[in-house]
Amino acid sequence: MASLVVVGSIAYDSVETPFGKVEEALGGAATYAGIAAAYFTEVRMVGAVGNDFGKADLSLLESRNIDLAGLDVLPGLTFRWSGHYGYDLNDCRTLDTQLNVLADFRPNLPKHYRSSEYLFLGNFDPALQREVLRQAGKPKLVACDTMNYWIEEHFTSLLETLKGVGLLLINDGEARQLSRESNLVRAAEKILGWGPRVLVVKRGEYGALMFRREKGGGLDIFGAPAYPLADVLDPTGAGDTFAGGFMGYLAGTGRSDRHALRQAVIFGSVMASFTVEGFSLDRLKEVTLTEIEIRYQELQRMTRFDDFAQPGEKILS
Amino acid sequence: MASLVVVGSIAYDSVETPFGKVEEALGGAATYAGIAAAYFTEVRMVGAVGNDFGKADLSLLESRNIDLAGLDVLPGLTFRWSGHYGYDLNDCRTLDTQLNVLADFRPNLPKHYRSSEYLFLGNFDPALQREVLRQAGKPKLVACDTMNYWIEEHFTSLLETLKGVGLLLINDGEARQLSRESNLVRAAEKILGWGPRVLVVKRGEYGALMFRREKGGGLDIFGAPAYPLADVLDPTGAGDTFAGGFMGYLAGTGRSDRHALRQAVIFGSVMASFTVEGFSLDRLKEVTLTEIEIRYQELQRMTRFDDFAQPGEKILS
Repeated sequence: MASLVVVGSIAYDSVETPFGKVEEALGGAATYAGIAAAYFTEVRMVGAVGNDFGKADLSLLESRNIDLAGLDVLPGLTFRWSGHYGYDLNDCRTLDTQLNVLADFRPNLPKHYRSSEYLFLGNFDPALQREVLRQAGKPKLVACDTMNYWIEEHFTSLLETLKGVGLLLINDGEARQLSRESNLVRAAEKILGWGPRVLVVKRGEYGALMFRREKGGGLDIFGAPAYPLADVLDPTGAGDTFAGGFMGYLAGTGRSDRHALRQAVIFGSVMASFTVEGFSLDRLKEVTLTEIEIRYQELQRMTRFDDFAQPGEKILS
Repeated sequence: MASLVVVGSIAYDSVETPFGKVEEALGGAATYAGIAAAYFTEVRMVGAVGNDFGKADLSLLESRNIDLAGLDVLPGLTFRWSGHYGYDLNDCRTLDTQLNVLADFRPNLPKHYRSSEYLFLGNFDPALQREVLRQAGKPKLVACDTMNYWIEEHFTSLLETLKGVGLLLINDGEARQLSRESNLVRAAEKILGWGPRVLVVKRGEYGALMFRREKGGGLDIFGAPAYPLADVLDPTGAGDTFAGGFMGYLAGTGRSDRHALRQAVIFGSVMASFTVEGFSLDRLKEVTLTEIEIRYQELQRMTRFDDFAQPGEKILS
């Protein structure tokens, strides 16, 4: 089992959806990704909170398989975000963002983190993402996230970061915006020419697509539906949870081959399905390994269409 | 091999997309569905054209495994539709619809059609869909399509039709609108209480979901991605082609069990992937069985994530 370094925001989120609301609940990319990943492997977290950060929230992180040596407690307030979702839960409106202690935060990897073989860079300034890459040793797999702001305002810097990244994990809107291609296959071809060997495209309730440049130059594509749910309360953190489940599973197995990557997409989907069933970390933090395993197996059953035929066996003639 | 009766529109479509345009090209639900299905089984078509219907178009239909005894040639003009797509090919704007000979058309099944075991009712007036059901014998499987107009303006009539239908094949917007549920699992639960035992939800580039009420009362869900394409020229007819490939495969095998239904979704996706690669029927009509088989096998490879693990085998412990 290898360890996974997770770098990203820790936040207090205020969220309203048609199904309820929370005020200043624990959130942030590193929180969702870290807690999801800690079900699979040892997580080493890097981030910053203010001196308003709650004892119960710290205790939650401490209670998991998470090393907090890289968590800085700085004078000032913890990062705040607030957002609103309508009945179309794919569509989120950000109401407010207060960077607070994140405004001047520079990530600094503790010495013992630098030998970690797996690294996840949450969505933050690409220049800082490169700073983390410089501090890290020679990880076996570096995955990173980004968002529209960095694509629009720091495009060149983002491209520079992508050169040092093995895997990019973004949503479909970001993939189209980054590549300036409306077609996702074309988008993937372009992005895989910029550094990453793997592109994972998160599509919310529509599942995920993974594009992988093979050694021979071919493009391997994997597609999986999202885990179908009758009750989605709050999509906040779903993408970060996906990333955490995905990278946590890979680190936990010490693998990054085609087969493990595909399984990792499924574990990412499974973990995200728990997050959206509750507000904040309410559901994710209560999950058991057995529940994870059951949803994985359900997704196996939901996606198989040739239980009886061998791959490649002729169907039509 | 059983035969499939296909009832629906035959049209001349004028379509513009960012990648080109066609004027008065052969289209319509029965055309796309019929030609797709005819790769798998004998099709018996029911529809009407005007006396302006082109010889080449008639020859195309005649050249296939399609019985045209149910095709009426009526005085007047063939149905016309025109539409426009932007770069978001999921979003279509209808510019004009001229019913012409379809305005007063009443479908009438030739005697020898009435023993067919598979029946596909394209998107038309639910009262006429019931009229076809009355004419048909006791088909093994009846599938039907519908659209927003019938949901909004003929809701009660549509519900009456659904009582006689085994399988409803619609897109996700229609599923939400019909059920008045934003969540698709809830939408499916509701719709499957109204008659159909199977609901297939087409999601365009996001693939398809199938919900099936099992004998024991459980809900079986199947999800498949769309066949990924780098070049989509014109989405017109994709949904009808999906329906044709889906029903054609089932009729061709004489089956309607869980396993065959799942394979049928994949064949539906494969056939639709050809349609969107060209304008009108340009690409669909040229397809070979080998090309169909290859894309089916590619979708097998694209969706498997446990080639080595047995279903149900524990992954995490």
